[in-house]
Amino acid sequence: MQETIAKFKEQLAKMKAYAHALAILSYDSETTMPKAGNAALGATMGFLSGEHYSLVTAPELREMLETLAQNREELDPVTRREVEYLQEELAKMERIPKAEYVEFNILLQTASQVWREAKNKNDYPAFAPYLAKIIDFSRRFAGYMNPALPVYDAWLNEFEKGMTMATLDAYFADVRAKLVPVIHAIAERGRKIDKSCVEVEFPVWKQRKLSDYLMDLLTIDRDCCAIGETEHPFSTGSSKHDIRMTTHYYPTLMLSSFFSVIHEGGHSLYELHTGDELIGSPLAEGVSMGVHESQSRFFENLIGRSRAFIELIYPKLCEIFPEQMAGVTSEMLYLAANHSSPSLIRVEADELTYSLHIMVRYEIEKRLMDGTLTVDELPNAWNALYKEYLGIDVPDDTRGVLQDIHWSMGSFGYFPSYSIGSAYASQIYARMAQELDIDACVRAGNLKPVCEWLEEKIWKYGKMKTPGEIVENACGAPFDPKYYTDYLTGKYSALYGL
Amino acid sequence: MQETIAKFKEQLAKMKAYAHALAILSYDSETTMPKAGNAALGATMGFLSGEHYSLVTAPELREMLETLAQNREELDPVTRREVEYLQEELAKMERIPKAEYVEFNILLQTASQVWREAKNKNDYPAFAPYLAKIIDFSRRFAGYMNPALPVYDAWLNEFEKGMTMATLDAYFADVRAKLVPVIHAIAERGRKIDKSCVEVEFPVWKQRKLSDYLMDLLTIDRDCCAIGETEHPFSTGSSKHDIRMTTHYYPTLMLSSFFSVIHEGGHSLYELHTGDELIGSPLAEGVSMGVHESQSRFFENLIGRSRAFIELIYPKLCEIFPEQMAGVTSEMLYLAANHSSPSLIRVEADELTYSLHIMVRYEIEKRLMDGTLTVDELPNAWNALYKEYLGIDVPDDTRGVLQDIHWSMGSFGYFPSYSIGSAYASQIYARMAQELDIDACVRAGNLKPVCEWLEEKIWKYGKMKTPGEIVENACGAPFDPKYYTDYLTGKYSALYGL
Repeated sequence: MQETIAKFKEQLAKMKAYAHALAILSYDSETTMPKAGNAALGATMGFLSGEHYSLVTAPELREMLETLAQNREELDPVTRREVEYLQEELAKMERIPKAEYVEFNILLQTASQVWREAKNKNDYPAFAPYLAKIIDFSRRFAGYMNPALPVYDAWLNEFEKGMTMATLDAYFADVRAKLVPVIHAIAERGRKIDKSCVEVEFPVWKQRKLSDYLMDLLTIDRDCCAIGETEHPFSTGSSKHDIRMTTHYYPTLMLSSFFSVIHEGGHSLYELHTGDELIGSPLAEGVSMGVHESQSRFFENLIGRSRAFIELIYPKLCEIFPEQMAGVTSEMLYLAANHSSPSLIRVEADELTYSLHIMVRYEIEKRLMDGTLTVDELPNAWNALYKEYLGIDVPDDTRGVLQDIHWSMGSFGYFPSYSIGSAYASQIYARMAQELDIDACVRAGNLKPVCEWLEEKIWKYGKMKTPGEIVENACGAPFDPKYYTDYLTGKYSALYGL
Repeated sequence: MQETIAKFKEQLAKMKAYAHALAILSYDSETTMPKAGNAALGATMGFLSGEHYSLVTAPELREMLETLAQNREELDPVTRREVEYLQEELAKMERIPKAEYVEFNILLQTASQVWREAKNKNDYPAFAPYLAKIIDFSRRFAGYMNPALPVYDAWLNEFEKGMTMATLDAYFADVRAKLVPVIHAIAERGRKIDKSCVEVEFPVWKQRKLSDYLMDLLTIDRDCCAIGETEHPFSTGSSKHDIRMTTHYYPTLMLSSFFSVIHEGGHSLYELHTGDELIGSPLAEGVSMGVHESQSRFFENLIGRSRAFIELIYPKLCEIFPEQMAGVTSEMLYLAANHSSPSLIRVEADELTYSLHIMVRYEIEKRLMDGTLTVDELPNAWNALYKEYLGIDVPDDTRGVLQDIHWSMGSFGYFPSYSIGSAYASQIYARMAQELDIDACVRAGNLKPVCEWLEEKIWKYGKMKTPGEIVENACGAPFDPKYYTDYLTGKYSALYGL
């Protein structure tokens, strides 16, 4: 038995090496690689993914897993969960033919590049054939991975285990019913909030200093976490000792990078505090996209956009940007940071309208996955839904259907986790507030108690529990979207004097 | 036969994928990776190196190579050379036990990090045990790779095929005999050259703009070549479509990054112009370290430090840095760029004294490799040679024996290529000048003819020829160090009015 465990751990270490290399290659391609390097990168990532695939689907591994599963009582909790987790992954993966798996990975590497150029040139037709192929693969793969489920449920399950269209239909109906009236009320009778006070030029080199300050405030250990710059901010990591996050500096939109750093910082904190016993294990990462997003949104919105945080940071901003902040009060900054109005671009959307952007994508993904919407019909469908949900006209595909990278990466089913994550965050906050004076911690510039609470309830577990168990463990109750709709309704009614 | 060739090319593609991943992981670790990521990186690189090793030493590959070698007349020239090259590599590699190979690679990953910290803290004893292990491995590996050769000749051969201590002893004796009198003459009766005129603050963001300008001037295609920032500038690449070079900006030493960009640009140009027929082949890189260095030094010194280039660049510098350049004439800039005096740090050494820094390392490496010098005796030996060759006292190990990364990477035998490369560059320049009015090209800001000449004679060949053949192909004669010593003697006699 000890021998089988040792061999099993050896296999895990090999998988980890491939996963590590793939993570760095991918990060490098986003941050550094010159454009022409993409073809060779696709070939290399295709090959390494194939080797990784071969390891995971090797008959030896399957035998090991069976032996270990039969003797699960003898295993320590981490190994036991590793066995379960890999058996689930294997069951999905081994039904995907290796050639198709490699082909799909190579396609995705090209498609992201094609998408980027199509977006820059407002050229949806250039991207459409790639998208059609990705949709084809995705529908086929869903059938391999989880033939019992509808295609889209199979993909939702990949990002948030147990998530279904039934749950999301109800969730989004509720969100829509509660939030749309608030959005309309703001448009009709809300007071005017002016954010132009902070839309002057803030030099980028000083914004970089601000990022360093924010990372310190968030208690991020810089020996384990690097910050880079990309067009779209993101976070990734290969272990709790090597996390990368990025931001994007806009000279006249200081708050953009400000909140990106806090958002990506939330993702990073989650990974940085995975339990030590999980180092090197496939369980050593956030449990799901939804729970991951709950952590980034917790810090970005619940903490970062709170009055307490704005009051804490205000003197620092005045110190770093004395000229720009002259005449800006802490209250003006608070209002600017929480300004809301329907807009075109998801990643720039405010907290209140954000979930409507997700609903557009959710409705479209359902139809792309069940085959009732074609790529040719997609832009019109997109534009019609933006009109219906957000009341705005989409002027071009660059600011419409081409705005997000996700579909070029084959990530159907990912978007809903952004909204669900926001909802988790509100519920987590409400629960934490019963045990901790969060505002007092923030005002003292001491986020340690907040981080320790999250580490204890969420971060340390990695994938040792399911997403549902994690949420319940943190909140002391199953997921309930009312915390999210109550929070937003209350906050925005007060802000806009409704 | 066609089938064997196809299988062979498939194996090459796999090797390429590992080499590509390893190159990016290594680049990332120099430029981006947070410090704590090093342990996991060592494990991953160790594993991937091991997989690469297994591919290269697999019995199937050996059989393929034998079959192909027996039918060499039927092969196209690239495949023929690939077979030769891999048989040579294989003959060396298969005698290294895989476990030792992997262990050495993991050791090197740790040792570079230990070296970095030891250098920062002036703590040679912290690095010494690692260095001792690296020396042990290196001596053992030389015996595996090339048992017929003395240890150091085996390593010289790795960086410059055919290079021997016999050749280098004669070369360095000649260099020393010719250049030391010039260095002494400058100290005793040379006119004073003042470089303080360009040692004022040049803002880094403007220096970055200057780098972009220089890369354009060098005709570097930015779609294929990225520039990053590291403490020590370097270049690397995984294909002609993905080259990375770095520089380091010092606010008050504008010329440092200026010449780093031109130097690394020379390396990059070499790789960017490898022949298309070599894409994906192990032959698709510069033939040797010496020839590589000849290209970087050609651009840095023969072109970049010429009067013609300085006169070309002078108006641009005045445009980018109007305040800093006020009162600096083109002649003052030319003199500052060519200032010479014995100094402590190799990478900051001027063109004239540079080879003396190499001689120190050459003498030490010979003795470390033949076992007549221990790591404990090393710092004293270093300091004594700096006194003897350059006439200066080494104040601490940070600026002494710990200054270079090479030994922590196990690169014994690498240093001489820096000096040999400079010597090649002078001979290449002399030959090119017979066919091309180089100064006229430079004054016109048109380096294309210079690049085309080098592409035709050197760059396109990759590893299709030996270093000796490449040099002879470019120079129309075998290597002769007199071009180098004549060039430096002439240039510095004029500069210092000797």
